[in-house]
Amino acid sequence: MKIYLILLLVVVSLFSSSAFSDDSILEYPSEIESMHKKAAEEDVDLHCTTWRFAAEMNNLAPWKSIPAECADYVKNYVMGKGYATDLERVSEEALIFANSVEFSGDGKDIWVFDIDETLLSNLPYYIDHGFGLELFDHSEFDKWVERGVAPAIAPSLKLYQRVVDLGYKVFLLTGRKESHRLVTVENLINAGFQNWDKLILRSPEEQHKMATLYKSEKRDEMVKEGYRIRGNSGDQWSDLLGTSMSQRSFKLANPMYYIP
Amino acid sequence: MKIYLILLLVVVSLFSSSAFSDDSILEYPSEIESMHKKAAEEDVDLHCTTWRFAAEMNNLAPWKSIPAECADYVKNYVMGKGYATDLERVSEEALIFANSVEFSGDGKDIWVFDIDETLLSNLPYYIDHGFGLELFDHSEFDKWVERGVAPAIAPSLKLYQRVVDLGYKVFLLTGRKESHRLVTVENLINAGFQNWDKLILRSPEEQHKMATLYKSEKRDEMVKEGYRIRGNSGDQWSDLLGTSMSQRSFKLANPMYYIP
Repeated sequence: MKIYLILLLVVVSLFSSSAFSDDSILEYPSEIESMHKKAAEEDVDLHCTTWRFAAEMNNLAPWKSIPAECADYVKNYVMGKGYATDLERVSEEALIFANSVEFSGDGKDIWVFDIDETLLSNLPYYIDHGFGLELFDHSEFDKWVERGVAPAIAPSLKLYQRVVDLGYKVFLLTGRKESHRLVTVENLINAGFQNWDKLILRSPEEQHKMATLYKSEKRDEMVKEGYRIRGNSGDQWSDLLGTSMSQRSFKLANPMYYIP
Repeated sequence: MKIYLILLLVVVSLFSSSAFSDDSILEYPSEIESMHKKAAEEDVDLHCTTWRFAAEMNNLAPWKSIPAECADYVKNYVMGKGYATDLERVSEEALIFANSVEFSGDGKDIWVFDIDETLLSNLPYYIDHGFGLELFDHSEFDKWVERGVAPAIAPSLKLYQRVVDLGYKVFLLTGRKESHRLVTVENLINAGFQNWDKLILRSPEEQHKMATLYKSEKRDEMVKEGYRIRGNSGDQWSDLLGTSMSQRSFKLANPMYYIP
């Protein structure tokens, strides 16, 4: 009897140490599942990173909304460290350049800033509108703009202040319409922006011009007036490309929308 | 004595099932280690992805070599799925545009292709030279070029053939020097490229011009001759920006080197 008890205990001991507690057997099915899940996630991640690169490098035909399968990817990017780190980097690089410019001393060296997704963040609006998955709704977005509560993009505010301190003239060139001038000024000041030299908004007759053309024409005027456009910060290629391009352009990340 | 033996076995059994075989105790230190390692890897990944974006968006001042801490990141990207997927995407997007152009029927619609890292891949060279970590060595690279064995970038070859079939005139515009014409022609043909209309290389007096200026001047000439530059594919912004820019430009990824 005693020998049976001993044997029983030996058997229990063997089982408990090798079979039932062995992860490689008990957890095998969930391991496979998690491997597949990980592979699928990696595929989506790869696909959406490639999409984001293509969008940011201006390789996509004008796009109207983010791909449905990249909704979570874009959300995680803009709400997480990726977007923040990218915004910090572009501000740092712009600052290195801003510091390196030798001024002519005639007060004609300027820096052009776009406003939305460059100085001010509309992320609170996009949090409520699918991060670019929903088609752009002009009247809904206008309501948000009219609240005048868009927060500053912190690294851009830092760049802005340094650029003002260095003695650049600062021209704000935005696709916002002239009727939003007051609320835009209020919003900028509340977010910490001061001392700009010009705030250029779209007049009613410019309302339907492509952004690239509208912004190019405004830069052409600056150049005609003798200004040297040293730096230009914008989140859209339509802020940066066209005629009278800046000596250096700085493209902020924006995977949520595209303005041609 | 027997009761001691039984007790001993019970104790052994308990230990073997709960203590010595319990992963949560035995593997705790290595779990922490792997957590830290993972966090550090994620930091490097984030940092290097931000660097790559900044480089690809032309936000960096001219850079001479990749950051040392991103050596593995760049290696993994170009040797893995990331680079391949990005190259496929840019080819697909270019093809969508190429198909959409309505020709004027006068044979003056052209597509400009850069060669290195656009049609031909120098990856075999960069595998032996740190993927951009080593400073660029002109004489070493010349030796590689003179072997004439650079493989085609497969998605670019597909785009190239389709562009030729669609009836575009194809102009190859490269920073390679005129003395490399023969080896370049041989290399292109061996890699599957045929039927280009012009192959433009740098003459000795153009050797020290910035690429942006050299390529702009060549595009200016094309425009003067009545050509319409519909598409332009290149891995450097100096292939794409400047004067006489293409109707649409397609920026291929290249995190290994920068040509101003």
